[in-house]
Amino acid sequence: MLKDRARNIIDGLRNKANALMVFRPENIFYLTGFWGESIALCTQDGIKLFVPKLESSRAANESKYSEIITAERGSGLIKSVIPNLQKYSFCSDCSDYETVRSILPYANNSNFVINENPFRTARIIKDDSEIDKITRASDIIDKLYQVCSEEIKIGITEKQLQAKLLYEAMKLDGTSTCYPFTLNPFIVASGANSALPHFETSKREFVDGDFIVVDLTIRYDGYISDATRTFALGNVTNEMSQVYELVKKSQQCGLGFVEQGAECQKVDSACRNLISKYGYGDNFIHSTGHGVGLEVHEEPWIRPDELKKLSKGMVVTVEPGIYIDSKFGVRIEDTILVDENSNTSLILTKFPKELLIL
Amino acid sequence: MLKDRARNIIDGLRNKANALMVFRPENIFYLTGFWGESIALCTQDGIKLFVPKLESSRAANESKYSEIITAERGSGLIKSVIPNLQKYSFCSDCSDYETVRSILPYANNSNFVINENPFRTARIIKDDSEIDKITRASDIIDKLYQVCSEEIKIGITEKQLQAKLLYEAMKLDGTSTCYPFTLNPFIVASGANSALPHFETSKREFVDGDFIVVDLTIRYDGYISDATRTFALGNVTNEMSQVYELVKKSQQCGLGFVEQGAECQKVDSACRNLISKYGYGDNFIHSTGHGVGLEVHEEPWIRPDELKKLSKGMVVTVEPGIYIDSKFGVRIEDTILVDENSNTSLILTKFPKELLIL
Repeated sequence: MLKDRARNIIDGLRNKANALMVFRPENIFYLTGFWGESIALCTQDGIKLFVPKLESSRAANESKYSEIITAERGSGLIKSVIPNLQKYSFCSDCSDYETVRSILPYANNSNFVINENPFRTARIIKDDSEIDKITRASDIIDKLYQVCSEEIKIGITEKQLQAKLLYEAMKLDGTSTCYPFTLNPFIVASGANSALPHFETSKREFVDGDFIVVDLTIRYDGYISDATRTFALGNVTNEMSQVYELVKKSQQCGLGFVEQGAECQKVDSACRNLISKYGYGDNFIHSTGHGVGLEVHEEPWIRPDELKKLSKGMVVTVEPGIYIDSKFGVRIEDTILVDENSNTSLILTKFPKELLIL
Repeated sequence: MLKDRARNIIDGLRNKANALMVFRPENIFYLTGFWGESIALCTQDGIKLFVPKLESSRAANESKYSEIITAERGSGLIKSVIPNLQKYSFCSDCSDYETVRSILPYANNSNFVINENPFRTARIIKDDSEIDKITRASDIIDKLYQVCSEEIKIGITEKQLQAKLLYEAMKLDGTSTCYPFTLNPFIVASGANSALPHFETSKREFVDGDFIVVDLTIRYDGYISDATRTFALGNVTNEMSQVYELVKKSQQCGLGFVEQGAECQKVDSACRNLISKYGYGDNFIHSTGHGVGLEVHEEPWIRPDELKKLSKGMVVTVEPGIYIDSKFGVRIEDTILVDENSNTSLILTKFPKELLIL
């Protein structure tokens, strides 16, 4: 329940701190329901939400269980929380170096500790309302793959498909996510472009024999789902079909390990070992998956050497891929709600994974 | 010229540092043409671009004048640049507190200085290729306001208009920008919602008597333009028309001060004084404008007390607004290329500003 979230985090700190100073918009949204320019100060007594004047009415409308305090913008907002540094001992998610430097001189060493882990740990297990939103985002993604199966044709460009998909997503109340390392809302990569996992969608036209990788991240009411399907257009080679089937099997292997108590590295190695066995280990050039929620990429990390264990209520992706430079790539990805065993873990993105030849 | 940018910044540092360690994607794009997960290390001898494996082919395709060095992802990427800390003295734009903390132990005090100003200063004056892109983004915005004038009707929702506008933008090779304090690609705010400057677009249907504020930020090939128009639907009140005309005059006043040598605060006060004179000073609850380029908001800041002067080649917004809580709001904004005097400063967003009653 949103109402209890801040208090639960504070309780989890035991005596190391008795208050939270929260800067990241996704954490503030998690604690208050408001996504905007603000600093949240949470104690056992409640939440004070410091916002610039231009955000105060919106914050009052959208936040819950919060007292709104209006302040100046930018550095003025930081100044407005400084008097509290002597009253409480804070755990903060502040990640901006300049902001930290402007706060530390006013804090004793011990009463302003930067540690995002308590926030990450709280957000890693999704409650029913969060699962509902990720499920809604997943449903939108399923519909978009249906659109792909209708729209992908020879002569259509990657950008045209991307525009159409985002339009349909928005009509279904989805929005794009913001991943800072791309200029694109999501990935549509065809032909040789599909060999680049994070390709920036181009004006290339689809041609016969293409693989088309469509990696969709869609947000619904704050929460994200993430999936990838690879479509075939016309006559693909035997090598392409074989690589597709290998990635599909690899992903299924990984899904079989998604359950409470499984080390993340076990899911990664399940996918990776199969791909390596068939000689494509060097072509699987990224990790197997990640948690998803208010951010596209969040804990837990499904990668080699990650000993953290999955728990019921986590939501993660499993997305092996094989990339043959200058030729083609295949990636298949689902978003999965972790449950007690892999048979009851729920794949939220349900569009079929058989190779669809369009 | 992109080729000279890194060297120009290093030259400007004189002897304070002889190399750059660049983390922010917009600065790396500015220096190399590549937007992605990477760290750029620039010296007088050239640029080394450290990228994770999954980005290496794309970085090789998209970056210019750079040697690509493949490394592990995340903390692995940071580790890969650390051996260079003993070879050069760096100026860095690193803003992430954790990253700074992981680098500083390997640097002498003097050979890793965090200072984003040289990057901001370089980017504040746009060259011809940058102006061309911002102009293209502005042209897209003009076309989108034409779409607004055709699409805004009683019964259409804010979200429907937003989806349509983004679709049209993408068909014109524009993309949305990512402003971290919103879940929306841009603002469509109608009726009482328009009184909230950063309203999150809703499913509210337009009704007779609405003002509809449409604040568009559109990116073309990396570069952004930013404009706002306020449309009227049907029978608006005399107060609404009067407020509209006042904001329009205020904006014209501000535009008259946009020229080389003008203090930024002069542009702000030109807009603000007129609004205050007519009694709406407390309803103008944000600053007057900002620079625009690879980020939606960048230097210079057009706000009270900002003594920095405008220079030829800067690109700024002028966007006064009046917000009557729970009733309506008006904002009018253009993106302007600063020239030697206000008559030759070029308003890049050209859609008319007369009150359009639809």
